[in-house]
Amino acid sequence: MSDPSSSSSSSAESIAIAARRAFEASQLLPITERDRALTAIRSRLESAKSDVLVANKKDMDAARNGELSKSLVSRLDLSRPGKYESMLQGISDVAALPVPTGIVTFAKELGPGLELQRVTCPVGVLLVIFEARPEVVVNIAALAIKSGNAAILKGGKESLHTATLLSHLISEALATTSVPPAFVQSVATRSEISSLLAQDRYIDLVMPRGGNELVRSIQNSTRIPVMGHADGICAVYIDESAQEETAVRVVVESKIDYMAACNAAETLLIHQSLLSTIWPKVASALIEQSVTLKCDPASLAALSPSDLIVPSSEQDYYTEFLGPTLAVKVVASVSEAIKHINSHSSHHTDSIVTESEESMSAWCRGLDSANCYINASTRFADGTRYGLGTEVGISTGKTHARGPVGLDGLVIYKYMMRSKKQGGSVIADYEKGGGKYTHQDLPTQAPMF
Amino acid sequence: MSDPSSSSSSSAESIAIAARRAFEASQLLPITERDRALTAIRSRLESAKSDVLVANKKDMDAARNGELSKSLVSRLDLSRPGKYESMLQGISDVAALPVPTGIVTFAKELGPGLELQRVTCPVGVLLVIFEARPEVVVNIAALAIKSGNAAILKGGKESLHTATLLSHLISEALATTSVPPAFVQSVATRSEISSLLAQDRYIDLVMPRGGNELVRSIQNSTRIPVMGHADGICAVYIDESAQEETAVRVVVESKIDYMAACNAAETLLIHQSLLSTIWPKVASALIEQSVTLKCDPASLAALSPSDLIVPSSEQDYYTEFLGPTLAVKVVASVSEAIKHINSHSSHHTDSIVTESEESMSAWCRGLDSANCYINASTRFADGTRYGLGTEVGISTGKTHARGPVGLDGLVIYKYMMRSKKQGGSVIADYEKGGGKYTHQDLPTQAPMF
Repeated sequence: MSDPSSSSSSSAESIAIAARRAFEASQLLPITERDRALTAIRSRLESAKSDVLVANKKDMDAARNGELSKSLVSRLDLSRPGKYESMLQGISDVAALPVPTGIVTFAKELGPGLELQRVTCPVGVLLVIFEARPEVVVNIAALAIKSGNAAILKGGKESLHTATLLSHLISEALATTSVPPAFVQSVATRSEISSLLAQDRYIDLVMPRGGNELVRSIQNSTRIPVMGHADGICAVYIDESAQEETAVRVVVESKIDYMAACNAAETLLIHQSLLSTIWPKVASALIEQSVTLKCDPASLAALSPSDLIVPSSEQDYYTEFLGPTLAVKVVASVSEAIKHINSHSSHHTDSIVTESEESMSAWCRGLDSANCYINASTRFADGTRYGLGTEVGISTGKTHARGPVGLDGLVIYKYMMRSKKQGGSVIADYEKGGGKYTHQDLPTQAPMF
Repeated sequence: MSDPSSSSSSSAESIAIAARRAFEASQLLPITERDRALTAIRSRLESAKSDVLVANKKDMDAARNGELSKSLVSRLDLSRPGKYESMLQGISDVAALPVPTGIVTFAKELGPGLELQRVTCPVGVLLVIFEARPEVVVNIAALAIKSGNAAILKGGKESLHTATLLSHLISEALATTSVPPAFVQSVATRSEISSLLAQDRYIDLVMPRGGNELVRSIQNSTRIPVMGHADGICAVYIDESAQEETAVRVVVESKIDYMAACNAAETLLIHQSLLSTIWPKVASALIEQSVTLKCDPASLAALSPSDLIVPSSEQDYYTEFLGPTLAVKVVASVSEAIKHINSHSSHHTDSIVTESEESMSAWCRGLDSANCYINASTRFADGTRYGLGTEVGISTGKTHARGPVGLDGLVIYKYMMRSKKQGGSVIADYEKGGGKYTHQDLPTQAPMF
């Protein structure tokens, strides 16, 4: 664990170099050592529960005396019933997942005695930047160790005492295994994020875990690839052929189930043919749940006046309300709905309510979103609900990983090639008058090493 | 095609928006239209060969009068025998490849009547920045169309006339198909690269095709993911148990076959036990090919003096010579070799010469390089040699794609989910006292749409 009081860029560099060296050294360990490390961490944290709760109380007290919102204070709290145990159970759950590395995804014989394999391997060094929730330290340490990635964890000052102790306990547990202690490092509050973000020579992937502002500022200030989403501006579209029951169920849950979530709906698009049929039913159901409807002129005119029905502005269709407000707009066709979403949404999760196969096909193909749903709540967009076993994050990026990301979002691959021919293999054996490449597919079973 | 004389950032934005709209519109086309577009492009270019060669002659003349190196001038030249035909054949070769989109890579039933699929799809809009070779326009257009990505091509001023005409002919050919003409756009010399690199809202991936300086400057100035490699600092390591014949063949070809290539060797590491046995043989073979050896004290002392044998500096081990120079260093073990390469190389391609299974295993697991070879020339690192059918580029990045990249480096995926249940599906059906998720694997055959 690094010195919480250090803040210079040379400190950031030495942390990053230590992580890189720990990553490199760990690649030679048997993969079973990773599960041993997870077991060691779980028992160390189990036995130190009371110490952690003392540290956590310091953070909680500071937070209550400070200007933190009530919801932020509650996120800090590890003493809520079942919270600590569920954090520990999370380690065992990650340990029980299939190992995502060492999987052969492509294998060819280039010529007799010359075999090529593409094998999954860890990305390398992860930098995880998070805000209040101190259990992220434990969660990310588990995911990193299971996937073979070293991790640098940078928490917010709100969780300083808890995160520092958790990280210290993790290093202590690692010291009893052959995983290098610097494999998981925690950087406390004073080190500048910007000097860590400059370590692109040593850090391979940045994962921000927090609000929009944090994510956007990180995306703007590093050459390191960033995996995450800044906004969750999700939409539901009620198509001409929608069934009323489906429309009401999908729209209401998408909006109100958990309004602060990135997969909650912020926009409702309605086919113009439904203004006097399904739309008033959906609107009543939303108003019953105290949702304010910010309506375009057509959708507004179709409703009886209410305090919760107000005119919308263009900006509302780009807004992540994260609360009981929904922007509503009438469209003439599925293709107009798709165009609206492609140019206003955050490409996260959008759902159509329809009985038309043609509309479904246009939706799934035409929509440039990570999750394209038919007759289903946007709230399904989640790694655990998808059966991925865990969720590393949700990505709205268009490279590497997209949508809910499981452990396989923390791996990349390398090519391994071995010649068993006398004298080795050179391209002259196959080109410029040499033999020909055979390019035979080989079975993709165990990696050669 | 955009106006070659425009240079403002609003022009870059409008080009990027046009590409995005063309991409979005193209997603609803049947995939067969992509092959029709490739056929149309090939025949349009076939019939316009003499016009293209006239334009090419203008660029060649300007280059000869300018300060371009001879090798740059030769890269411009489309009139060399077979060159034009091989460019055309490239289009047909790409058309013949399997379509990389619409492949289901994961499919689960979340509950009865609720199916989830992960389906490969194009990344979106590509920005390809290239230097002299004008045939890149045709090559990238073919790859983009086959994979369903829109492309913006930004060439250097050296290839202005040729690239502009090729791009114009491609747009003419697209106009005879249902692929939108703005699907492939060419931006001529005056538009600023920097204003295109700022269009991260519309452009999804930047692919630089050129020298180090180009690639590095692009990596430093955009938030858009960049796929490519800046350097190719590749090494060969001769291990204790190496066979002499293999060592000589692998080292000599890796160094001299094509010295300007990114997969040529720049560093040679030698186990200390080989100083009086294999090393002098390898050195003679290299000197015979006029390679200058920049040696550390131990490797220098083991050789008889020669004009081609000089002392090395530390900087030499970080240098991509791209010519007849090789940095040489003696190491005490495979693990020292791995450490040297992990901290000096560009993580591109490195080869060990060994008969030891233990060394092979340490090499393939411990080396943080895209291509880890055993007893094989570094020159094998190439998409066509790997049997990928084509090569989009070689990536030394650690996310999305690594090593030689085929067409599947131009795709990502989206999740499609469909509820067939009466009333649609909401998470309350499965959580908080509802039913349970079944998470049954489904066959990964055709995509639902």
